[in-house]
Amino acid sequence: MKNNSFEEIGEQLRSADTVLLYTHVNMDGDCLGSAAALCAVLRGMGKESYILLEDELHDNLKFLDKGYCTYDQNIIAKPDVSMCIDCGAPDRFPKRADKFAEGRVSICVDHHATTAPFCQYNYIDPGAAATGELIYKLITAMGQEIDKEIGEALFAAITTDTGNFQYSNTTRESHEIVAALYDAGIDSNAVSVEIYETVRVEKLMIKKRILDTLELLADGRLAMAYVSQEMLAETGALMEETEGSVAELRSINKVEVAVFLKEETGGRVYISFRSKHDADVAEVAKGLGGGGHKKAAGCTLYDTSLDEAYTTVRDAVMEIFD
Amino acid sequence: MKNNSFEEIGEQLRSADTVLLYTHVNMDGDCLGSAAALCAVLRGMGKESYILLEDELHDNLKFLDKGYCTYDQNIIAKPDVSMCIDCGAPDRFPKRADKFAEGRVSICVDHHATTAPFCQYNYIDPGAAATGELIYKLITAMGQEIDKEIGEALFAAITTDTGNFQYSNTTRESHEIVAALYDAGIDSNAVSVEIYETVRVEKLMIKKRILDTLELLADGRLAMAYVSQEMLAETGALMEETEGSVAELRSINKVEVAVFLKEETGGRVYISFRSKHDADVAEVAKGLGGGGHKKAAGCTLYDTSLDEAYTTVRDAVMEIFD
Repeated sequence: MKNNSFEEIGEQLRSADTVLLYTHVNMDGDCLGSAAALCAVLRGMGKESYILLEDELHDNLKFLDKGYCTYDQNIIAKPDVSMCIDCGAPDRFPKRADKFAEGRVSICVDHHATTAPFCQYNYIDPGAAATGELIYKLITAMGQEIDKEIGEALFAAITTDTGNFQYSNTTRESHEIVAALYDAGIDSNAVSVEIYETVRVEKLMIKKRILDTLELLADGRLAMAYVSQEMLAETGALMEETEGSVAELRSINKVEVAVFLKEETGGRVYISFRSKHDADVAEVAKGLGGGGHKKAAGCTLYDTSLDEAYTTVRDAVMEIFD
Repeated sequence: MKNNSFEEIGEQLRSADTVLLYTHVNMDGDCLGSAAALCAVLRGMGKESYILLEDELHDNLKFLDKGYCTYDQNIIAKPDVSMCIDCGAPDRFPKRADKFAEGRVSICVDHHATTAPFCQYNYIDPGAAATGELIYKLITAMGQEIDKEIGEALFAAITTDTGNFQYSNTTRESHEIVAALYDAGIDSNAVSVEIYETVRVEKLMIKKRILDTLELLADGRLAMAYVSQEMLAETGALMEETEGSVAELRSINKVEVAVFLKEETGGRVYISFRSKHDADVAEVAKGLGGGGHKKAAGCTLYDTSLDEAYTTVRDAVMEIFD
């Protein structure tokens, strides 16, 4: 399916009076920053527009919501436009999917590869590092001005999804767009403080406990660690707050492969694998029923204790080093 | 003193046969990345060029040295050009200052504000986020091509000195320059892995021990922690590996002021202060004989134990919250 142009999508938005925007569940900086930027633009054009949510906003993203977000599905009865941002399938906003279908016109702008675009108007570009880049282009194509607030929302979107411009998805264009945002007077550091300096102390505590479990094997080339339900209960941390652990393990000098085990409930253990240079962790994950890429893969083991899973995974991954 | 133009400086380099480059002690990604990029360009122009060092290269920067670095002051007897990069005074390269004076022509390219430029040719621009930006402009002004290796050295320089484009020194131009580096085929992620994923395990262990000392005061608005000589000895970590601790303390939700104490040897305790939004930590530091900026300040207490220093500092900083 061919993408529509930003001009075509802009024309649909221009001729609408009411626009409801949809972000995916488990919101991140890219989806909310992108939606907030567009919502500000649409309101500036005199339209009635909201971002409709179904799950809670993380504390570190709340600064992006300048009165845009709502949980009230009746806030606009039958909107002229339903538009999903940074998500390309209704199962990414399951409790709002029926409401989405109420829109007279449906639009999707996303950078995730999808098999079947489901909206009437689509712009899906897996080459974009962040949906924020696409929303920038849409706003520009609509001839609308980017002010400081809109610029900062787009900066939040792009900096989070590019891993602060360190991930390999970052492109020349990512930097060109951010360069242009500086003309709007963005305070990148203020955005950064909001996004990254709102860490619950429980997250630091679980990080500490995870480091207690660190094991270095294969002459320091393999780093393994885990988090158990007991560790979560004792620190009050959430499982999602262990995110970044496998990356921290990989950051250790000489470590080539990092493995992090999460004890989920119900006898399930989820395992993340990362490699630094040449090791192929997708092969290991596949051997355990999972999958992924050469440098980033995962699998789930069922009906197992954490101890058993740890031994199984260690033996499997050690084969890389034999 | 007026800056020379990059064309003038480029002309001096062009007419030289031998060029010795000088970086500051305690090298960082900006000084070494900038020097490595220029050294590669000069060698590509057929010149004999080295980066002359006096102290050890950190492990995470070694990838930048593709045979450029030397400790041998006799490698070039009386170079046509002595050029210091990212440093604007001989006391930033004390053991090489006499050698620097041997150069027929002296050049300085730097982004640190300095009171008195000391070279014959100078380009000092405190508005540049990184010296890497200035070296990019110099190379461009010289009409030299930027290949992948040179581009990656400049990316290393700019990404480290801008805190991955999060610090407030980052400008529109920082992003424009990096955008242009993508045309040279840079692999930003490969650079990032080298710079940030070469962490000694001792650094993680001292981080863990520092978190054990975390105290939240003033309803969670003040975070305090410390590192003692004993903690360093027990973990095998170096004091410099506690860098980033005060930033991590400040990153905690609701924390407005972060304080980190380092027990140095000889009864000295160094204290770093950071504030997140409005608190003025320079005032506190000044009251204790130190100084700094509103959001980042420091002081040293002498003839004190860590315990005494901790109490003194806590009492002083608590006044902010009274």
